[in-house]
Amino acid sequence: MQMNPNKDTQLCMSLSGRPGNFGLRFHNHLYEQLGLNFYYKAFSSQDLPGAVAGIRALGIRGCGVSMPFKEACIALVDELDASAAAIQSINTIVNTAGYLKAYNTDYIAIAQLLDSHAVPKDITFALQGSGGMAKAVASALRDGGYRNGVIVARNEVAGRALAQNCGYEWQAQLGALRPRMLVNVTPIGMSGGPEADQLAFEAAAVDAAETLFDVVAVPSETPLILRGRAQGKHVITGLEVIAIQALEQFVLYTGVRPGEEQFQKAVAFARS
Amino acid sequence: MQMNPNKDTQLCMSLSGRPGNFGLRFHNHLYEQLGLNFYYKAFSSQDLPGAVAGIRALGIRGCGVSMPFKEACIALVDELDASAAAIQSINTIVNTAGYLKAYNTDYIAIAQLLDSHAVPKDITFALQGSGGMAKAVASALRDGGYRNGVIVARNEVAGRALAQNCGYEWQAQLGALRPRMLVNVTPIGMSGGPEADQLAFEAAAVDAAETLFDVVAVPSETPLILRGRAQGKHVITGLEVIAIQALEQFVLYTGVRPGEEQFQKAVAFARS
Repeated sequence: MQMNPNKDTQLCMSLSGRPGNFGLRFHNHLYEQLGLNFYYKAFSSQDLPGAVAGIRALGIRGCGVSMPFKEACIALVDELDASAAAIQSINTIVNTAGYLKAYNTDYIAIAQLLDSHAVPKDITFALQGSGGMAKAVASALRDGGYRNGVIVARNEVAGRALAQNCGYEWQAQLGALRPRMLVNVTPIGMSGGPEADQLAFEAAAVDAAETLFDVVAVPSETPLILRGRAQGKHVITGLEVIAIQALEQFVLYTGVRPGEEQFQKAVAFARS
Repeated sequence: MQMNPNKDTQLCMSLSGRPGNFGLRFHNHLYEQLGLNFYYKAFSSQDLPGAVAGIRALGIRGCGVSMPFKEACIALVDELDASAAAIQSINTIVNTAGYLKAYNTDYIAIAQLLDSHAVPKDITFALQGSGGMAKAVASALRDGGYRNGVIVARNEVAGRALAQNCGYEWQAQLGALRPRMLVNVTPIGMSGGPEADQLAFEAAAVDAAETLFDVVAVPSETPLILRGRAQGKHVITGLEVIAIQALEQFVLYTGVRPGEEQFQKAVAFARS
């Protein structure tokens, strides 16, 4: 998208096990719209230390970090921002003259969304999942003052650890609980996965909830979100999460904050 | 220049002490013209091993190597092509699934130019210089069967080593010699240097020669080339060298050989 590359063009990149198109389309579109001399490239790697050495040695300005590198990257950077330190999981590296500071813009995005959607602080909720993204979501809930939660996770070790770390209870299954908010941070409903057509929570619990929050972004209209929309419930989608986390990366890399209309157009372009 | 980057876009790059625009404009222009899903980025680095680790770990397809990295890179690659092994100097790395093979397309370009300009095999010549590029030029002359040469270099150690390695004599100065071909492989005549306005050889020798070959590319119309042109002599310019070496890099990276017209247009674009 960047029309006139030259020797001063700065590179930003992503590093993930399965590169997608959203981030590179989002960033490159905004570079072009805002006239910034940047280019964004998606990478994968079998050698994380080598990849991070390359980021440092080549002066690559920023790097989005996705599965399965979010935890392993921690030992390779120089400093953790509070957003990453609290979770011990990073999704963003900013390189300033060879000094690597890591952030977690997923955490930042979740916190923003709880605020912008005006989710009540006293809401009861169940968060399903125990992976890296679940840590970001649970930490943002905890730090946002949401106290009435339960972590639902089949993995007892990871589930208990996450719950304990954030001051919540752990349960292997939702059971008879009917929380006001259901938060899905598992791959259930994700395109291409074995549970793509499944509802992340049992139907009775979905129907009893008032707010449905799904971090699955591909598609963002998961069975959970679709069922919630059909009943006029309040929904927060994974598209909002990936869009805002990408926006915050963009601001960290370039120092420029796009306007709301530019942001929305970039999201639409990135999805197309 | 590349209009629609996506997750499959391949990166090529250059690594040099002072990045310029020629290579990235040349390659990006041809990617666009030929519809190849590549992007070319110029880098510098203070950490060569880290940079090469990054090339390998990130699957960067190709890397042009310039001063001051041409010799130091040798220990970091997996294999030297004959073009690089003969000189022990590389200017190109091709990365195939993490295996790095290095080439010297300067050597290839010089050999092509001696051939396409039909320089007679029995021509007497003086080559001035003893750096990495001088090694490429002297080796191409030697391997092309040019036997009647002398290496002129103020640096006696480097000059003698180069001459001995290629089977030529060494002299500190041209003196009374009046060879039929003069080859400049020093920065004399290079824009921005302390000798930008100087003739690379003494005027009497230039006027007595029939062929003038200058590897200085910025500008390619050096005082040496201009004086030769004014007298209707046969000239071979540094622009031809950098254009052909870039073309051969392009072919190594992409597997595609542009047509002559596409090549010439890319050269014109890269200079503009």
